[in-house]
Amino acid sequence: MATKAYAAQSAETPLAPFEIDRRAVGAHDVQIDILYCGVCHSDLHQARGEWGNTVWPCVPGHEIVGRVTAVGDHVGRFKVGDVAAVGCMVDSCQHCPSCDEGLEQYCQNGFTGTYNGHAFGQGENTFGGYSDRIVVKDDFVLKVSHSEEQLAAVAPLLCAGITTWSPLRHWGAGPGKKVGIVGIGGLGHMGIKLAHALGAHTVAFTTSESKKADALKLGADEVIVSKNEAEMQAAAGSFDLIVNTVAASHNLDPFIGCLKRDGTLVLVGAPEHAHPSPSVFNMIFGRKSLAGSLIGGIAETQEMLDFCAEKGVVSEIETIAIQDIEKAYERMLKGDVKYRFVIDNKTLANG
Amino acid sequence: MATKAYAAQSAETPLAPFEIDRRAVGAHDVQIDILYCGVCHSDLHQARGEWGNTVWPCVPGHEIVGRVTAVGDHVGRFKVGDVAAVGCMVDSCQHCPSCDEGLEQYCQNGFTGTYNGHAFGQGENTFGGYSDRIVVKDDFVLKVSHSEEQLAAVAPLLCAGITTWSPLRHWGAGPGKKVGIVGIGGLGHMGIKLAHALGAHTVAFTTSESKKADALKLGADEVIVSKNEAEMQAAAGSFDLIVNTVAASHNLDPFIGCLKRDGTLVLVGAPEHAHPSPSVFNMIFGRKSLAGSLIGGIAETQEMLDFCAEKGVVSEIETIAIQDIEKAYERMLKGDVKYRFVIDNKTLANG
Repeated sequence: MATKAYAAQSAETPLAPFEIDRRAVGAHDVQIDILYCGVCHSDLHQARGEWGNTVWPCVPGHEIVGRVTAVGDHVGRFKVGDVAAVGCMVDSCQHCPSCDEGLEQYCQNGFTGTYNGHAFGQGENTFGGYSDRIVVKDDFVLKVSHSEEQLAAVAPLLCAGITTWSPLRHWGAGPGKKVGIVGIGGLGHMGIKLAHALGAHTVAFTTSESKKADALKLGADEVIVSKNEAEMQAAAGSFDLIVNTVAASHNLDPFIGCLKRDGTLVLVGAPEHAHPSPSVFNMIFGRKSLAGSLIGGIAETQEMLDFCAEKGVVSEIETIAIQDIEKAYERMLKGDVKYRFVIDNKTLANG
Repeated sequence: MATKAYAAQSAETPLAPFEIDRRAVGAHDVQIDILYCGVCHSDLHQARGEWGNTVWPCVPGHEIVGRVTAVGDHVGRFKVGDVAAVGCMVDSCQHCPSCDEGLEQYCQNGFTGTYNGHAFGQGENTFGGYSDRIVVKDDFVLKVSHSEEQLAAVAPLLCAGITTWSPLRHWGAGPGKKVGIVGIGGLGHMGIKLAHALGAHTVAFTTSESKKADALKLGADEVIVSKNEAEMQAAAGSFDLIVNTVAASHNLDPFIGCLKRDGTLVLVGAPEHAHPSPSVFNMIFGRKSLAGSLIGGIAETQEMLDFCAEKGVVSEIETIAIQDIEKAYERMLKGDVKYRFVIDNKTLANG
């Protein structure tokens, strides 16, 4: 099925209209007309070939919300007219220990990314949500129970949301726990909202004094300016968990210093240039851990979407036309977005 | 009470006979005639001022086994004639959350080291096990139920043993788990013995092909030569836990690569020069953790001693006279010991 999309044809060319072919709906497939697609920093990295594994043409987009327009004969969970969502994965081996535990993001045979999927899994390249329509295996399609008016702001939950939700849940964020979120961007603002909604005492770490008021509005109980040594010292040894959303190279030791005994600092972004080597001494004196976490599995993504619908949690967004995607990338690079761009996919009709 | 000891008077002077004064036995004190004292690498670092926090004169020694010769009025757990042991700590605040949980090594007010204790806790400097006799608060004295012939080889359990036991237990080493021990020295050889005795599938990592046979004799089910890339590749993604006893700066990524999803690499030694910064990418793809661990608490030290007595586990040792301590240090620096020197403290009588 001929489908309108926006694609990069090489690392140097801007995204532009491109026609892709979506497969016919198979017995286990769900076909979705895409209403909204969030703009993730990864989209820019992949479109511009910055991770060295891009297959061009590249149609980014893995924060997808849309309406079901067809289902295969063996699909029971979805029907035409349902609101559905697709996140970072459209397939995995579904039989390794990680898949068996619902952690497809750690599929030992490689999951298939929603776009540039060949780089992660098997088979042909995949095209993402900067398009009119997508056909996805039902096991990788999520249900959305938010209201119609919220749907644009739901889209970023599919990557920014689940990437912070998964470590928050895995490391037990909740009532009685003090949880830090480092960075107040696309991921960080969701981390603050989710940690707060989970009932944790939520503390935002930022380098910008100017983001304090916003962080409090997002749900932070406290804000620490991480460049302020006195504020960091006052927080020493007090955190159960810190989720660090900042991918740029920076010194991790002050955050490890903020952990309690047995606390964990979780990194959800890999820096282009290595972080300075963390102090082993600081980890030993306090049995502290430094860990990594990657997006989230399908079951926990559904759990997160249901939780967010119940609690009324959505992302803070600015909706754009697909024609403005390169402008949005430039603003994203300057941190000029509160806090996620979301494409209104009906603008694809405008060419 | 005047007590014979061996002390360093400065970073530059060799250890030599020195008389120290032990306090009178208080209501909660246990007085112990020291039979054996293990020689830990820390002893050398402290005696020579290599950690920058040494208080001289310095009487090292924190792997102490001896016989009780007096107890205070309020001591119920020990009586004269008992075999008792003292490890790395002789006091802590006993009222912070870590002490309350039996994890005095993470005392938030600083534990008191068995020697050079002023540097870690409060009050006067402390003198360790390179001496005739010691007086210790009963809460920090351990019971030993090994046989008389085993006592010299029990001494290293008090530091080398507990330092590997604590992370093995905390991170769940046991039947069905694949556990790696990096380095086959004082700590590593105990790690192999303890992981094996706990029922884990135990794998020794070494840089020396020549240590393979010994590692198998110590209880390893397999040995991997970590310089051999093919062997490391074959082990990728297979370990639940790796305890790394090597304090010299080295690349941690190959060991993180050997971990399964949710696996942990635990460092029990802090390098003088930082390890190369570990790859965040490797941690994210597999939700892996890098952690630190410090000796062990009093309750878990007793648990380890009881377990070892039951299973017949002791250290591999070479007994020396106190007069040979500097020679032992030089051999230790060259790795020329299988696997721990233990001082026969009755040689203190020879001056």
